[in-house]
Amino acid sequence: MEKGTAMYKYLNDIKSPEDLKKLSYEELTVLAYEIRNFLVQSISKTGGHLASNLGVVELTMALHKVFDSPNDKFVWDVGHQAYVHKLLTGRCDQFDSLRQYKGLSGFPKRHESEHDHFDTGHSSTSISAAVGMALARDIRGLSYDVIGIIGDGALTGGMAYEAINYIGHSKNNVKIILNDNEMSISHNVGGMSIALNSLRTSENYSKIKGTTKTKLMRLPSLGQPIVDLISKLKDSFKYFVVDGGVFFEEIGLTYIGPINGHDLRQLVKHMEMMKQVDGPVILHVITQKGKGYKFAETAPNLYHGVGKFDPFIPLKSGGKKDYSKVFGDTLIDIADKDKNVVAISAAMIEGTGLSDFSKLYPERTFDVAIAEQHAVTMAAGMALSGVKPFVALYSTFLQRAYDQVVHDVCIQKAPVVLCIDRAGLVGNDGETHHGIFDISYLSHLPNMMILSPKDATELSYMLNFASSYNEGPIAIRYPRGGAYEIDSTLPDSLKPELLIEGTETLLIATGKLVKTALEVAKTSNGKVGVLNLRKIKPLDTEELVKHCKPYKTLITLEDHIIAGGMGENVASGLIRAGVSVPCHHRGIEDRFIEQGEMDELLASIGLDVAGIQAFIQEVNHV
Amino acid sequence: MEKGTAMYKYLNDIKSPEDLKKLSYEELTVLAYEIRNFLVQSISKTGGHLASNLGVVELTMALHKVFDSPNDKFVWDVGHQAYVHKLLTGRCDQFDSLRQYKGLSGFPKRHESEHDHFDTGHSSTSISAAVGMALARDIRGLSYDVIGIIGDGALTGGMAYEAINYIGHSKNNVKIILNDNEMSISHNVGGMSIALNSLRTSENYSKIKGTTKTKLMRLPSLGQPIVDLISKLKDSFKYFVVDGGVFFEEIGLTYIGPINGHDLRQLVKHMEMMKQVDGPVILHVITQKGKGYKFAETAPNLYHGVGKFDPFIPLKSGGKKDYSKVFGDTLIDIADKDKNVVAISAAMIEGTGLSDFSKLYPERTFDVAIAEQHAVTMAAGMALSGVKPFVALYSTFLQRAYDQVVHDVCIQKAPVVLCIDRAGLVGNDGETHHGIFDISYLSHLPNMMILSPKDATELSYMLNFASSYNEGPIAIRYPRGGAYEIDSTLPDSLKPELLIEGTETLLIATGKLVKTALEVAKTSNGKVGVLNLRKIKPLDTEELVKHCKPYKTLITLEDHIIAGGMGENVASGLIRAGVSVPCHHRGIEDRFIEQGEMDELLASIGLDVAGIQAFIQEVNHV
Repeated sequence: MEKGTAMYKYLNDIKSPEDLKKLSYEELTVLAYEIRNFLVQSISKTGGHLASNLGVVELTMALHKVFDSPNDKFVWDVGHQAYVHKLLTGRCDQFDSLRQYKGLSGFPKRHESEHDHFDTGHSSTSISAAVGMALARDIRGLSYDVIGIIGDGALTGGMAYEAINYIGHSKNNVKIILNDNEMSISHNVGGMSIALNSLRTSENYSKIKGTTKTKLMRLPSLGQPIVDLISKLKDSFKYFVVDGGVFFEEIGLTYIGPINGHDLRQLVKHMEMMKQVDGPVILHVITQKGKGYKFAETAPNLYHGVGKFDPFIPLKSGGKKDYSKVFGDTLIDIADKDKNVVAISAAMIEGTGLSDFSKLYPERTFDVAIAEQHAVTMAAGMALSGVKPFVALYSTFLQRAYDQVVHDVCIQKAPVVLCIDRAGLVGNDGETHHGIFDISYLSHLPNMMILSPKDATELSYMLNFASSYNEGPIAIRYPRGGAYEIDSTLPDSLKPELLIEGTETLLIATGKLVKTALEVAKTSNGKVGVLNLRKIKPLDTEELVKHCKPYKTLITLEDHIIAGGMGENVASGLIRAGVSVPCHHRGIEDRFIEQGEMDELLASIGLDVAGIQAFIQEVNHV
Repeated sequence: MEKGTAMYKYLNDIKSPEDLKKLSYEELTVLAYEIRNFLVQSISKTGGHLASNLGVVELTMALHKVFDSPNDKFVWDVGHQAYVHKLLTGRCDQFDSLRQYKGLSGFPKRHESEHDHFDTGHSSTSISAAVGMALARDIRGLSYDVIGIIGDGALTGGMAYEAINYIGHSKNNVKIILNDNEMSISHNVGGMSIALNSLRTSENYSKIKGTTKTKLMRLPSLGQPIVDLISKLKDSFKYFVVDGGVFFEEIGLTYIGPINGHDLRQLVKHMEMMKQVDGPVILHVITQKGKGYKFAETAPNLYHGVGKFDPFIPLKSGGKKDYSKVFGDTLIDIADKDKNVVAISAAMIEGTGLSDFSKLYPERTFDVAIAEQHAVTMAAGMALSGVKPFVALYSTFLQRAYDQVVHDVCIQKAPVVLCIDRAGLVGNDGETHHGIFDISYLSHLPNMMILSPKDATELSYMLNFASSYNEGPIAIRYPRGGAYEIDSTLPDSLKPELLIEGTETLLIATGKLVKTALEVAKTSNGKVGVLNLRKIKPLDTEELVKHCKPYKTLITLEDHIIAGGMGENVASGLIRAGVSVPCHHRGIEDRFIEQGEMDELLASIGLDVAGIQAFIQEVNHV
């Protein structure tokens, strides 16, 4: 793999933002071209987030030109669009290890650079974090700017609104860049008059606005309502100009924009203006995902997160037989038969395998944007009104709806089906994206049922079971990646399934670890048995006891944190039932797991065949 | 206690909303008076939420006059303001059992009446639930109205915004009543011109607006931007009229209001108007908390949630020595010495004991409104920028920030102190408010420390410890209610503390259960020992093993769900350490706990002295 930036005239010399500041606009234009070229070349070899990064090349360059990182602090919402920032802050040479085990992260990481101030990964956190950093600055009497960079998608998340609502009142000096790359906020951007806009955002106009209000306030004969009315009259023309702007101004922020996010001079000019505002300010920047790379411009979704690819051949949409596809296909079958079945997701229709469903049943598909809290409570409302909702979310993002699962679903026994995709380790996205907590945050909730299929057929069976179960909520967790088939005959129950009998050790495995357990058992000369625990909650204690009693040692296996996970639930159930067979747990110890290829990660924590074999040796020979 | 409504002329006869519909406006005026009188009298004997219910008397009457419950469905956000609704739907006779064990709930409960369609308790869920119910209606081809009633406070919660943002796009036929009782949204309500407002909300005006846009759309020579511009010009004058309205209209809702929420005719008129709107519509109603009861009007906060009181003597603000006060007082001491210490809460400054702190250090007190997600991530931003945030939230409300605790606090090891008030059972608020999950949802998170003090002095010690601990986050959980003192000497460590040695059984207790355990031990003739487990995570396994080994039986005690709680954590740690002493868990089994007095509830689940004594007998004599 070709290392570094030797082929690039300017990128080669950028070791820190200081180097960028020295370049002329003409040179920066070439630099932008070089960065795009580098991104396409480099990501084609490692995989990664491409389209979003191609969209923020000029935006990131402008930020580093106008502000002084690391004294000034950028908070990248979601964070997968921070590659350009990494390139401009001395990490160019590490891009061949992007998203690899022990390599450069695909997200901002504080441990990686003094230019990264807040780790992100989930959506909509940046403004809250930025406010916190701005408040700390003021309390400590320091001087720096904090800039949150947030996409229009992330702005649909409730916590972003909580933060904006907060700064609208508290008036903290915090700056927000709205990176609007889907035009979902301002539909009328295209028809915007540049002349009026220029007036709107000029320093002169801002000054007039401020002065007018202050002067009126000083006249004692005018009551406050009148002041407001006159002030509104003065402001009124702005309402014709910008659509999104009204929203932000109403809530208390100074709004600037929208501006062309690929015009570096414009960006620099408006960021300089933004720098002068004392108080909360939002700069609305229009960018294009995939900008500069034709294939990605045409199909930005395909180039959102990519594996390795050939830069000269356009990507085609997949057709991989993964668990998401099994889910989507099965749900179509179910919906064919039951017209009260609906699908809900939160900006993850494609990722969760619901694309085909949404085309067949658009009126029964509900994409609520990045709003997991709303998704879950809306589902509860539906479920209690005679409709059967299947809510498809990634495990890590369902975390955001924990309270709604407790309060709106479980207390009311609402028959919502939570389809938890990407459960377990997810690979290269790392710490922020592994779905390793769902069993723990769901299994302590009364009325919740938790299922975990060993293979594609079992997932299908569970979805069908859930479709006709109306006693309460069901969560079905299944992993990222290829769906294998252990047994293509449909199960006839959800009880623990003894797959292989053994003479010494019983592996109690769930989900994708069942396959690994089977491989271990096959090389054990009959010593190791395998039990597929497909219903994690409630435990079929009687069955479990029956299966466990004959063994000398029990070992639970799960791609999940051990604390509060399947293993501890099983151990607790066995102890209550008076079973004294020693029960050991293999899963993820009390730490976050870094990025890497799935196999590498599983091996690193002893959840591969060799690791489990070694553990069996260890516990049986102490 | 006097039963029922015999003393009331009209209230006496209201058995269902049909009875209300028969009354004239003159009679309804008397009914409103009777309802207020009844509420004050009745709540003075049982305790409950007073001020908020006094504020919605006319609003609730209008709802039942205009809509047809139970076919039309009301969703009461938070729900503690649903008393009037309960009175009008045949539950008047049950008010002497309000919030008591097995009595009438202080919140809407589906099991209680066909007029209650969605259980609430936490804030900001109503619009999501209402949308779900409206979508179910449309899918099933049914016909009914769904009305969410939400306060201006609840509107600061992000999930309410997620829901509004959703219906602004999806255009579902769902109705929202904004019960604005603090004027926090529309500051200029007082100066609003009634004439203009009347024009704004008249059917006529709505019709004109609709027609204009439709007509323009039909002219093919006009491009969409121009249509929008003209449409905006037509709408422009509305911006001078209502402040809050712009926000909602921009986001895609029809906005009506604001109107006087104590004028029944106005309410009925505008609700009828709202009924005609096809699509999302919000009616902005201004009400006064405590309306009609002078003491409550003057001090609505004091009359928010009350115990028993004398209706003829005004309440005074407390001075109770509860855990919240210990927290607040200690934090003042800490902040006196360290100017980087700050307090954050989410509309719970008073409840969490931060009133005095906020007066002494207003610039270091951050009340973010009902926005727990923002509170926690903002705290992470502060903590990583050299400021020490103490985030005070009730256990049940911290649930809403679970993802932020995982993603922004734990992954980054941000030294945030989570001060978890109302941990454990809370009493009369019931299912939705008990703080019985926090150990489970926090203890599986890497980098998290969890502390739980046995008494006031220990809480104080822990807060001081946390103030100088910067390695990562700390959660300190403490119960609702009176702070007792077991030992007034400051502890010198967080290690498990052996309080009483015993010969047979060791009670491993945490938090408020330590006191109960001591009482049990004192009557055990030396058989029962007591260990105070004050640090729940990470476990001091070595110390724990040392204390546990000599016993025949271990019993863990916690006012928390057993699954994933302290007991299971301890058992798991002991098993790993090879300790084979049988370990039993006492806590809350796998079910939600109803309302009731604390002592009643604890007794009902065997967590009182007698229950624990009986359990010791049981496990030692099987």
